[in-house]
Amino acid sequence: MCSPAVLAQVRSTLSRRGLLGRSAALGAGAAIVAAGGLARPLVVGAQNATPVASASPAAGSLSGGVALGNFSQIQDLSHIHSPAFPMFPGAEQMAINVLVTVAADGFYKNQLVLDEHTGTHMDAPAHFVTDGTTAELLPVEQLVAPLAVIDISARAAGDPDAQLIPDDILAWEASYGPLPAGAFVAMYSGWASRVGDAAAYLNVDAGGTTHFPGFHPDAAALLVAERDIVGIGVDTISIDYGASTDLATHLTVLSVGKYGIESLAALDTVPPSGATVIVGGPKHLAASGGPTRVLALF
Amino acid sequence: MCSPAVLAQVRSTLSRRGLLGRSAALGAGAAIVAAGGLARPLVVGAQNATPVASASPAAGSLSGGVALGNFSQIQDLSHIHSPAFPMFPGAEQMAINVLVTVAADGFYKNQLVLDEHTGTHMDAPAHFVTDGTTAELLPVEQLVAPLAVIDISARAAGDPDAQLIPDDILAWEASYGPLPAGAFVAMYSGWASRVGDAAAYLNVDAGGTTHFPGFHPDAAALLVAERDIVGIGVDTISIDYGASTDLATHLTVLSVGKYGIESLAALDTVPPSGATVIVGGPKHLAASGGPTRVLALF
Repeated sequence: MCSPAVLAQVRSTLSRRGLLGRSAALGAGAAIVAAGGLARPLVVGAQNATPVASASPAAGSLSGGVALGNFSQIQDLSHIHSPAFPMFPGAEQMAINVLVTVAADGFYKNQLVLDEHTGTHMDAPAHFVTDGTTAELLPVEQLVAPLAVIDISARAAGDPDAQLIPDDILAWEASYGPLPAGAFVAMYSGWASRVGDAAAYLNVDAGGTTHFPGFHPDAAALLVAERDIVGIGVDTISIDYGASTDLATHLTVLSVGKYGIESLAALDTVPPSGATVIVGGPKHLAASGGPTRVLALF
Repeated sequence: MCSPAVLAQVRSTLSRRGLLGRSAALGAGAAIVAAGGLARPLVVGAQNATPVASASPAAGSLSGGVALGNFSQIQDLSHIHSPAFPMFPGAEQMAINVLVTVAADGFYKNQLVLDEHTGTHMDAPAHFVTDGTTAELLPVEQLVAPLAVIDISARAAGDPDAQLIPDDILAWEASYGPLPAGAFVAMYSGWASRVGDAAAYLNVDAGGTTHFPGFHPDAAALLVAERDIVGIGVDTISIDYGASTDLATHLTVLSVGKYGIESLAALDTVPPSGATVIVGGPKHLAASGGPTRVLALF
């Protein structure tokens, strides 16, 4: 790495060339538009596997903007995690330790110290299963999936021990049709609104038991035995409900090679059916899970 | 968390119910096929924003398999990172510390200790710019982009100091048309084949200087000033070439709010034009960058 003095010199040179700063960036954008020119709309979902030389915009794209073809929206389903993010009782909060700063060193970076099960994160099969698949080895085809969101928020609003039961799955199918093959099935309970308050998110009673919604083991059993899923997700901190004494949903899902995603965000902003979820799971060695960037396209 | 004894009991119960193990999972899949039933092909790129009740497979889908609609392939562009993964000289290797195991505790997880700039990772604007955007705050629209792969591997094979220059961008455009708006531009140098050998990947000379390919600052300046990009990526450990003394490419790209992705994998397996890249960037607080799951759809 070069010295702060050298970096400062380069900054100065770039600044003279008009390349630094947000205003310069906006200026560059304006220049492209003014040139009438090279910009071409992004059309997700209209790509070819073979190289194409398409100079003309694809049909249906937004003029001058970002058109996503069959997708018109991208929604982030991951929370920002930090040392304040709620952790499962007994697990350590993450630490973010500043290593260097732009002011002192010319660049900025941190060291992260974290439990794999921090923030919006994956539970890989290996989290509960000896010789189960670790997160980095899950087939990549399982990370792009049709998203089904099952809403139990009305029940959860009055009962923190509410569980997603088989009837909720059947009711979803009655409305939207059979669960698509390879689906990722998410429970929306409304719990994400509590994530900024660890006490409310974990909801621990005087006896030390957590109370928040999750998948009933019978619903998990239905999904793995009678449907075709890649995994399940929740907007709470565990795919089992908080008062579970046996974590049977974890075992049911993970023991057949499926994965879980916990502490999902913004599930109320995506359609119950029809979105595609992209699961940017962790890729470190021997991962029992890890922080995961989850995006929904619809 | 419940005790190992309780978990063992649940495992035993689930096993009797035939829900445990890979064979059970395969059996469940076979049952779905035999029932002729509920499975429905995944059609990425053919989703609607409104709920649909489509019981029949979409046209063009693969029979019995996963059809991706306009996308037929998913390619993982991230390496597995580990304590052995090459780090920029001076940076610490990551540590993976086992916290609990299935055998002893009923479940398995690790603590991770890592420099943000580990593995296939993002450099956010804040990595080099005071008050620059941190990774978790990058607009999510910048994480889904048309992917352009520019191949300089022939030159890099004979010259570890090879750089991607403006003429390489123009040559790509001559073949494939203007860079699409909002593109993510990746350099393929062939360097990913060295990633298992840190000495070869970093290629440090007797004087301590690294030698590997990167983007020439003039190419970076062309992209940010005369094209419309979200970021650039490389299959080496730095968007600047290894012998850079001023890291001018970092400064040019990051100072205008674009991002870099370093240590990309498998760029030779995706088309030079026409793929869409999904950048599963880090989402922890104040991130200068971090491990990133990068997928290409085409």
